[in-house]
Amino acid sequence: MNQNKLSSLALEFTYTNDLQKAQLKILDQTLLPFEEKWLVVESLPQMIETIQSLRVRGAPLIGVSASLMLAKMAIDGVSQAQLIKAATELYEARPTAVNLMICIDRMRKILHHGFAVENVVKEAVEIFNEDVQLCDRIATNGANLIEDGDQILTHCNTGGLATAGVGTALGVIAKAYAQGKNIHVYVDETRPLLQGGRLTTWELTKLKIPYTLISDNMAAHLMDLKKITKAIVGSDRIAVNGDFANKIGTYSVAVNCFFHHIPFYVAAPYTTVDPSCPNGQAIPIEQRKPTEVLGVQGHFGSVQWAPHEANVYNPSFDVTPAKLVSAWILDRGVFTHKDVDAGIFKR
Amino acid sequence: MNQNKLSSLALEFTYTNDLQKAQLKILDQTLLPFEEKWLVVESLPQMIETIQSLRVRGAPLIGVSASLMLAKMAIDGVSQAQLIKAATELYEARPTAVNLMICIDRMRKILHHGFAVENVVKEAVEIFNEDVQLCDRIATNGANLIEDGDQILTHCNTGGLATAGVGTALGVIAKAYAQGKNIHVYVDETRPLLQGGRLTTWELTKLKIPYTLISDNMAAHLMDLKKITKAIVGSDRIAVNGDFANKIGTYSVAVNCFFHHIPFYVAAPYTTVDPSCPNGQAIPIEQRKPTEVLGVQGHFGSVQWAPHEANVYNPSFDVTPAKLVSAWILDRGVFTHKDVDAGIFKR
Repeated sequence: MNQNKLSSLALEFTYTNDLQKAQLKILDQTLLPFEEKWLVVESLPQMIETIQSLRVRGAPLIGVSASLMLAKMAIDGVSQAQLIKAATELYEARPTAVNLMICIDRMRKILHHGFAVENVVKEAVEIFNEDVQLCDRIATNGANLIEDGDQILTHCNTGGLATAGVGTALGVIAKAYAQGKNIHVYVDETRPLLQGGRLTTWELTKLKIPYTLISDNMAAHLMDLKKITKAIVGSDRIAVNGDFANKIGTYSVAVNCFFHHIPFYVAAPYTTVDPSCPNGQAIPIEQRKPTEVLGVQGHFGSVQWAPHEANVYNPSFDVTPAKLVSAWILDRGVFTHKDVDAGIFKR
Repeated sequence: MNQNKLSSLALEFTYTNDLQKAQLKILDQTLLPFEEKWLVVESLPQMIETIQSLRVRGAPLIGVSASLMLAKMAIDGVSQAQLIKAATELYEARPTAVNLMICIDRMRKILHHGFAVENVVKEAVEIFNEDVQLCDRIATNGANLIEDGDQILTHCNTGGLATAGVGTALGVIAKAYAQGKNIHVYVDETRPLLQGGRLTTWELTKLKIPYTLISDNMAAHLMDLKKITKAIVGSDRIAVNGDFANKIGTYSVAVNCFFHHIPFYVAAPYTTVDPSCPNGQAIPIEQRKPTEVLGVQGHFGSVQWAPHEANVYNPSFDVTPAKLVSAWILDRGVFTHKDVDAGIFKR
């Protein structure tokens, strides 16, 4: 039986030509950097657990994975009504990243109008392939901004582990490096879930790009020492006015860049733009459980250092206002404040 | 035999009237918050290990502990020459906090001129008692700045675990709370060594002062949400121009306070002022080992989440320039930029 295969750094989807069989495999990112284990995702509850526990993560990749899950379920013979219900459950799996919602909305159109297994599969495959292309375009657009000798701060993980392609912010960095530019990356560890310390380090090691890992609170000191020349981050949702949500700690990076006159860029595909969201205040912020701040938990081990009775605040994201952004690097181009003010994010 | 006893939250020194016997006990802060174990410090190498491994820490407390160690050694019959050598080893145990150096310099004067066991003991006891009084005065001076309803961000640990008395920044907070002011404390966990997450939480729990623990990178987001009305930190060295060194991450707090128009205070005894240090650039910054950033290590457990081959930068302190300080809270008063510019820190 002829098979079709989509594969990326953290996702693999295979399906037969006759649409009788499909398999969705996800690299369990909670096990990185020490173990590379692929999960075969069989059921909707497993997929939702996989998203909520951050086995799969990154705003674009969550949207792609959820779409492919619907395709797999369609191939498995799940009914139209059940698929529509599943779409809603996936839509609600995590609240902040809009890519998930935009992808699921695309899938819903197919599920509601002109439902057929092949159409569902076609749409999900298109979403995957489009994300790969969007990443390439972001990387090409952004790499133009990177100069030889740049020392670039990044936060969280925005590479091949966060998208179906080369990534957003990390894709820009990888592209600039591939162009032969002599660059160095400073990696915020990104407490509490350590996506920088575990995942970005893992990707940069694979890419052989020189980097230095720091605790998040060291970035300002490095800026003061003039060791950082640019910062690039990803995004989970961009509002029409240019405000954007991203991993907690991004806002502090932006404020520090502003204070030190360091260019601060956000890189994202157009699927991260939410044309229905007027500004940052309208972006819902996911609150996560206290244990993540009381200590660390992971495949690498779990420890708690704070008293059990400690009150904790644990927002997973924060909002950076447009005024702190030097430019928005999208697949469609690099946008300035003038572009944003002119309504580029209204579509 | 009549005994004299000095005791604080993390230090206990007892000695007989006839100066025949002495005991120095230190609360092992690496075991907090889950275990309260007192170490009997018997030897100079043990004391140096105790300082370098942060079993005893906090700029003022390190100076007090080192002074009492010399007193104990004098009572134990160690020769003048050996005490002078020991003073040098203690002086060099950690590089950034100037209190250690200022205390040891005081002890050295006694060791060199007019050496007698009773004089050595007297000086060390005076250093201890003075630190208690300095803390009280700092607390009183600083509490005047705290208003009912304040939500105060603090970084690292600056309380009874960092001094012989009620603390510096945390002493101010405790005093304001004792005065009946309705306040809430936001505690930066303070990566990489988690003095906030482990120690400040432990002290605030004991003091029954309401607090919320956060990852360091969340503070800016809280400021944006108008949840933080003031920030107070301690210091390891204040330069003549008002620049100061403190635990890594302090500078980022200061920049964020400046950006959000939030008052930012530093609280310290005069023993933290280095009249020979013209500015922040002249303060040596201790660099610590990479493992502290690759993961966490403690009595609570040790885990590593970053790849073994990751390059790491791990400065233990950073420098905050005077321009970001709203006021300097010292035992001798609350000083403004005008005071500092007029040379208050030149003595």
